[in-house]
Amino acid sequence: MAEITKPSILPGMMELLPADQIKFNEMKDIIRKNYEKFGFVPLDTPVMEKTEILLAKGGGETEKQIYKIDKSSTDISMRFDLTVPLARFTAQNYSELNFPFRRYHIAKVYRGERNQRGRFREFYQCDVDIIGDESLDIINDAEIPNIIYNTFSELNIGKFTIRINNRKILKGFYNSKGLEDTQSVLRIVDKLEKIGKEGVKTELLEIGASEKAIEDIMNFISISGSNLEKVSALESLGIEDEIFKEGVDEIRTVLEYLEIFGVPEEYIEFDLSIARGLDYYTGTVYETRLDDHPEIGSICSGGRYEDLASYYINKKLPGVGISIGLTRLFWQLQEAGLIDKEDATVTEVLVVPFEGYEKDAAKLNKELRDNNINSFINSEKGKLGKKMKYANNLNIPYVILVGEEEVKTGRYAFKNMETGDQEDLSVEEIVEKF
Amino acid sequence: MAEITKPSILPGMMELLPADQIKFNEMKDIIRKNYEKFGFVPLDTPVMEKTEILLAKGGGETEKQIYKIDKSSTDISMRFDLTVPLARFTAQNYSELNFPFRRYHIAKVYRGERNQRGRFREFYQCDVDIIGDESLDIINDAEIPNIIYNTFSELNIGKFTIRINNRKILKGFYNSKGLEDTQSVLRIVDKLEKIGKEGVKTELLEIGASEKAIEDIMNFISISGSNLEKVSALESLGIEDEIFKEGVDEIRTVLEYLEIFGVPEEYIEFDLSIARGLDYYTGTVYETRLDDHPEIGSICSGGRYEDLASYYINKKLPGVGISIGLTRLFWQLQEAGLIDKEDATVTEVLVVPFEGYEKDAAKLNKELRDNNINSFINSEKGKLGKKMKYANNLNIPYVILVGEEEVKTGRYAFKNMETGDQEDLSVEEIVEKF
Repeated sequence: MAEITKPSILPGMMELLPADQIKFNEMKDIIRKNYEKFGFVPLDTPVMEKTEILLAKGGGETEKQIYKIDKSSTDISMRFDLTVPLARFTAQNYSELNFPFRRYHIAKVYRGERNQRGRFREFYQCDVDIIGDESLDIINDAEIPNIIYNTFSELNIGKFTIRINNRKILKGFYNSKGLEDTQSVLRIVDKLEKIGKEGVKTELLEIGASEKAIEDIMNFISISGSNLEKVSALESLGIEDEIFKEGVDEIRTVLEYLEIFGVPEEYIEFDLSIARGLDYYTGTVYETRLDDHPEIGSICSGGRYEDLASYYINKKLPGVGISIGLTRLFWQLQEAGLIDKEDATVTEVLVVPFEGYEKDAAKLNKELRDNNINSFINSEKGKLGKKMKYANNLNIPYVILVGEEEVKTGRYAFKNMETGDQEDLSVEEIVEKF
Repeated sequence: MAEITKPSILPGMMELLPADQIKFNEMKDIIRKNYEKFGFVPLDTPVMEKTEILLAKGGGETEKQIYKIDKSSTDISMRFDLTVPLARFTAQNYSELNFPFRRYHIAKVYRGERNQRGRFREFYQCDVDIIGDESLDIINDAEIPNIIYNTFSELNIGKFTIRINNRKILKGFYNSKGLEDTQSVLRIVDKLEKIGKEGVKTELLEIGASEKAIEDIMNFISISGSNLEKVSALESLGIEDEIFKEGVDEIRTVLEYLEIFGVPEEYIEFDLSIARGLDYYTGTVYETRLDDHPEIGSICSGGRYEDLASYYINKKLPGVGISIGLTRLFWQLQEAGLIDKEDATVTEVLVVPFEGYEKDAAKLNKELRDNNINSFINSEKGKLGKKMKYANNLNIPYVILVGEEEVKTGRYAFKNMETGDQEDLSVEEIVEKF
């Protein structure tokens, strides 16, 4: 007997039992199918990259979380997102690619985060990006929420809202108020819910905003109404800043396209308060929340960027994209009790032979598979009841018994495991059921 | 302008351009579909495991090739196969699983091999295993080549042969000849093609085989005929060793089941010369070769083992399984010119608006997608010819033009990119084409 090493996995890793894994894969498949329906090609880059590539943009928080590999003389690390590999890939294969380059990438990434419930160190990201060469039409900024609407609708996880904004509107507006340090203004305004209007005013004063500017800012972030009413309200502010006007034009165009694409207005909210933390985004930005589970936070975020790969190539490659954090989303849906595993099976039929009828069962099983019925034989030692329980535990909906009577008559006992009903059917009749 | 880091990947990694990736994924999808058709559930374990888990069985060659992670105080490594994670998972979740436990796992593994053409340090394995609790019926040993036959037939990679043997036959036969050191005999006999019959005889003499034993061995490995003729020839040897007889019975049963499962005899070869290197296997063993490309070697190997998880749990868990090395197989098929990328696309239709008709194009695109036609719009700046070339480069089979005439009449210019034919069709007529 070998010495026993207690079986366990590392903390911060999601590992699912088969029924959960089947549900997880169903979600992953729906995402992939929608991404392909929208004309995105798959990409599958190595999990390991040269550290100098991953950190070309500069380290910061990322560098602390990175997993380094202790092997050859080359400095190797695990990717922490799918955007840096996309940038590297696009730069490296620039002359082989066709732009706009529409790619999806569904794969695991690694971050050595602090160990915490619901935080994962290995998790799936499901990214779509559209990369232009020098320029990229604004229609693509509508295509992204269009994909998300279609994907999430099919995922059937309840009502959700895609909140969109445009950073040019924020930048242009604050600049027009004499506030060049947009980042600081955004950070302060972001605290509105926490510190209240008076707190925000005080802090804005501290960074040098005038009384008039502060009043304008307060009016700006209070703009309400339908999406297009908000756009009109912004237009009527009479702000002459070019960037502001560009941003307003863009959001109007995006909203118009979304209507044409059939995305219902109640799924889209033009929200002037979202900005996305990263200074990487330069135009449209997105966040997505489940209406009934605001506590989950954004389950899918992204935006428009000016320049994907400036660290790797001397070309201007603007893009727009979004990422679904599937591992975290799945975990949250599980926690909220929204994952129903009762139908989680890959198998439609279990074939159970009585002793001595294993070969007849094999013959029947071949016919089922020839008719694309997912099935297999359980011919292990043990009582019939045990095999019925086995089918039940695996959520297999039908069991076929194969014994003397069945072989003689060519009619098989076909049992519906949910209702308990049992019929004697010929192979043809069984096939017709599927 | 940021400083440029030359974009590149680590050596020994396969990274594909989109058309190749589409073909790769098609193969991966066919494998998965067949595995599920045969009732295997998916498993997806973390890429990183505790090093003590991965090396519980003892290091050797594996330990030298392992990628270690330089992070927390825990000793972490990257998995080098999918069998050790399966063993750990099965032991860890023993009470939650239903046996026989049929699982598939298609994922990347990592080995720091010597850098060499066609050898990969990150590669996909596509594993199926059936794990029993205490015992596992012999029908499962036939199920494995049955899956492989169905999968490879659908992969459409030319005629292949699954070679099977049973280690009990080898062990029992050599033991009956007074040769307890089966490993050494196997190693010597394996050199037959290299050193010839005389060389083999000399080496067998050196390890203490009698003249009579050597003659018997030579006759044994020369047994020829159809698969069942070989079985009969073995039976007629009159060897009374129990293990030998068990092995012969098993191979006969496996061959009988394979016939019932409809696997044509020319795809199966009972081959007494294969043994598989690993002493892990105890019964049936498999190798698979492409008939027209013997130089590729075995593209899929596996076998029956006595005890999956003895390093992690005090339970006897016998199993049988096989692994397809997809990354290497794909590379070899590419090298042999067997990957045809001309139809590699995820997109069926490219919609191209003339300037000013982008919103009409969006409306049409929505209708196509509502009818499950994979499609998108190219509304970038640029001439029509450039967009036709774009569709062509992406192997998109159809282009629809949207301009003044189309919008007025409701009939769109529908162009077949392969034949160059162009028709004016209504949306309904276009949908019917798919």
